[in-house]
Amino acid sequence: MPLRTLLQTAIATALLATASVSAAPAASEPLLSARDLATAARLRGAALADDPLARNGVFDLIESITTEIGQRLAGTPPADRAVDWAVAKFKALGYDKVYTEPVSFPLWTREHESAEVVAPYPQHLVVTALGHSVGTDGPLEAEVVEFASLDALKAAQPGSLTGKIAYISNRMQRFRDGHGYGMAVGARAYGPSLAARLGARALLIRSVGTDHDRLAHTGMLAYAADAPKIPAAALSNPYADLLSHMLARGKPVRVRLDLACGEHGIAHSFNVIGEIAGSDKADEVVTIGGHLDSWDLGTGAIDDAAGVAITMAAGALIHRLHLQPRRTIRVIAYMDEESGGYGGRAYADAHAAQLRQHQLGAESDFGADRIYEFNAGVKESAWPVIAQIGQVLAPLGIATVKGRGGAGEDPGEFVAKGMAWASLAQDGTRYFDWHHTANDTLDKVDPKALPQQVAAYAVLAYLAAQAPGSFGSGEMAAKK
Amino acid sequence: MPLRTLLQTAIATALLATASVSAAPAASEPLLSARDLATAARLRGAALADDPLARNGVFDLIESITTEIGQRLAGTPPADRAVDWAVAKFKALGYDKVYTEPVSFPLWTREHESAEVVAPYPQHLVVTALGHSVGTDGPLEAEVVEFASLDALKAAQPGSLTGKIAYISNRMQRFRDGHGYGMAVGARAYGPSLAARLGARALLIRSVGTDHDRLAHTGMLAYAADAPKIPAAALSNPYADLLSHMLARGKPVRVRLDLACGEHGIAHSFNVIGEIAGSDKADEVVTIGGHLDSWDLGTGAIDDAAGVAITMAAGALIHRLHLQPRRTIRVIAYMDEESGGYGGRAYADAHAAQLRQHQLGAESDFGADRIYEFNAGVKESAWPVIAQIGQVLAPLGIATVKGRGGAGEDPGEFVAKGMAWASLAQDGTRYFDWHHTANDTLDKVDPKALPQQVAAYAVLAYLAAQAPGSFGSGEMAAKK
Repeated sequence: MPLRTLLQTAIATALLATASVSAAPAASEPLLSARDLATAARLRGAALADDPLARNGVFDLIESITTEIGQRLAGTPPADRAVDWAVAKFKALGYDKVYTEPVSFPLWTREHESAEVVAPYPQHLVVTALGHSVGTDGPLEAEVVEFASLDALKAAQPGSLTGKIAYISNRMQRFRDGHGYGMAVGARAYGPSLAARLGARALLIRSVGTDHDRLAHTGMLAYAADAPKIPAAALSNPYADLLSHMLARGKPVRVRLDLACGEHGIAHSFNVIGEIAGSDKADEVVTIGGHLDSWDLGTGAIDDAAGVAITMAAGALIHRLHLQPRRTIRVIAYMDEESGGYGGRAYADAHAAQLRQHQLGAESDFGADRIYEFNAGVKESAWPVIAQIGQVLAPLGIATVKGRGGAGEDPGEFVAKGMAWASLAQDGTRYFDWHHTANDTLDKVDPKALPQQVAAYAVLAYLAAQAPGSFGSGEMAAKK
Repeated sequence: MPLRTLLQTAIATALLATASVSAAPAASEPLLSARDLATAARLRGAALADDPLARNGVFDLIESITTEIGQRLAGTPPADRAVDWAVAKFKALGYDKVYTEPVSFPLWTREHESAEVVAPYPQHLVVTALGHSVGTDGPLEAEVVEFASLDALKAAQPGSLTGKIAYISNRMQRFRDGHGYGMAVGARAYGPSLAARLGARALLIRSVGTDHDRLAHTGMLAYAADAPKIPAAALSNPYADLLSHMLARGKPVRVRLDLACGEHGIAHSFNVIGEIAGSDKADEVVTIGGHLDSWDLGTGAIDDAAGVAITMAAGALIHRLHLQPRRTIRVIAYMDEESGGYGGRAYADAHAAQLRQHQLGAESDFGADRIYEFNAGVKESAWPVIAQIGQVLAPLGIATVKGRGGAGEDPGEFVAKGMAWASLAQDGTRYFDWHHTANDTLDKVDPKALPQQVAAYAVLAYLAAQAPGSFGSGEMAAKK
């Protein structure tokens, strides 16, 4: 999940709250039938009874892509293999229709990265370049100036960083809903251009992560158009501690940074889509999904093989129980979420004319731990139907909460055009220990936590597809 | 702590048990005075009241060496700086006498290491060379053959591994006393020569560690004199999983291994010793200590800056309370424990003639978590005195247990000649998550856990120095 999600979530939530308050009272949308609710409960039970470790079971899908492909940075050969993998798996799972749609995006790669303190206490440092950072063009050596936060950097005097490396050292806080990410990620997003405007030659940040592992967290930066592009990297948390401890001694600390990374033009790849065909409303769609690409450091198990597998398995379950939903259910494996939601944007642009036919969009992109909350961004008159869905989710330990959450990065692109959305919020307590690091590997996925999530997505997708009325796509104010 | 400790412990414990049973009944050694016991209780209270974060407090010492020096592989420049650091700190802490003693050992260094699966699923692998492994002399590519354990490798047919890379995949189990290490470490120690005798070109093992981090665990191997020396490396646990998952698919898996590492002749360094001078028995000594060197991957915080700092602080506390013990207390910061206990051996060899004057030796080398058990290897008639010491340790939550434990690697060299020993067993539940990895950093040290340990070493050292009688050094059968 990149930075935009949480920033947008805050905005979307605020807009939604305003909309809810100001909307005139409207008649409720027609409710789901008892039969549909009973069928959804049957889906829920079937998902919970499934063995996630079975061939093409939800865990097995994650094991498959992480073992056979591993890291799949968008635009690189493994990401191309991941497209083939997703096509093959959708077909193996019996989806009615499997196809791809093109996505183009700037290709960025990392060749090597290293850093060391050269004085006064020579030590190697563990760093990783931020996504889409420019390289250092050979080793860059300079004195480090520490800032306790992005705000402290903002308050620095113009020119005060000339020739220096700026270092932002605040630590991300741990919360179940991950909102510590939104509080900390500004340093990663906006720090590079802020530091550049103050004359800095490079930026170091403490990794945006909650762990104590000697592995750094990558993730997108956002260069401003009017600032010089300077190289930027994240220090692992133990090394951020180390650098701060050195600086606390008061002597000048010089660091040598060597980042070989950068953009290489435009790459082309694909979103991969599997459909469970609808019946009388087949031209209307419910989308669920996750993103197929990953950062290049780990094997992308929790970010986001899990989301792809959970939603793939949910659609497959509907198929396996021989249920034909009224609307078409599209499971979308988006390409290149990580460097800016290009897959979501490509889908939203390609299908903009069918906005009103998109009943609802949702995405699983917050790791592999259990879902605890159901949120939605729908028109007020659809809330009674959302509440019905919530009643089927409740036995899974999922609370329906109004006025919180956000669509997620990929559907977020279409939500910005006015699509209704839902989110099934996962427990993110551990997520930011491993997020965007080499530690994003299969062992972080608890197979026992997965069936609950498959159940929730199957219930949500099926009932959204069955709902007699609309959730409000194209009727609500656009969110961007 | 290298492999020998736990293997020797088992042997020493068995011998001791035998000795205890077969020894003729003897009169007990004279007991400690009530005054000595009261003074020890005062030391205990003072240690617990200390602020570990204060300047030259126990945590501050660990922070100092990890920040200002970091990794200090024996024979490398940072290890030389660590010698200077220890001399300076002993002096700053007011030790009566500070000096060094020479230690020589084979120098081994690691230049670079990488590995990748080249077919059928190309992926990068995280490995680290085992300590004192030969290099691969450029990339080495071969098919991998998996063995579930060292025993399975032993059972392989001669010649069956010709041209292959052997891979031992069993996982270390987690226990408070760390005995899972002894169960797993044989693959690291003996695997290389066993595999070489079967024709293998290289050995990979699953890291001997309890973690799920994408960081590999190094540590010593033990080449047999009669086998070819082949390169050997450990895979991080997530990558060991990955390789096993690939192999489980049944297709040949080819790995390319590139290790630039090796021995470079004999290096010379020093044990650093700080003394609290004795009074009427000043020529007799009690030794406590830890080891000054570390592996090269982390900053050596838990292995073993903690042990050096805890025992340094314990001696310093005795000095600070103006207590002059009867016997001299030596705090020894041993050099090059990691590649085979060379510091301990150098001390034992240099002081062999004073075996009987060594009342007791002990070492802190099992991380930074709390002590839960007190063990000793003393003559039977000294046990009532050990029990008295145990009574002063009991309020620290430390149980005195007869017939368990071992001396630790460094004093172990002298114990092998017949020195009496004690051990203060630390909770090792988390230790092997970080042991011998890049994750051995300051953040793994809980400052709150340290004062209890300083208290225990101060009590032990002081009371061993005050005991009217002998603990049996030179009177017991040698342990090796």
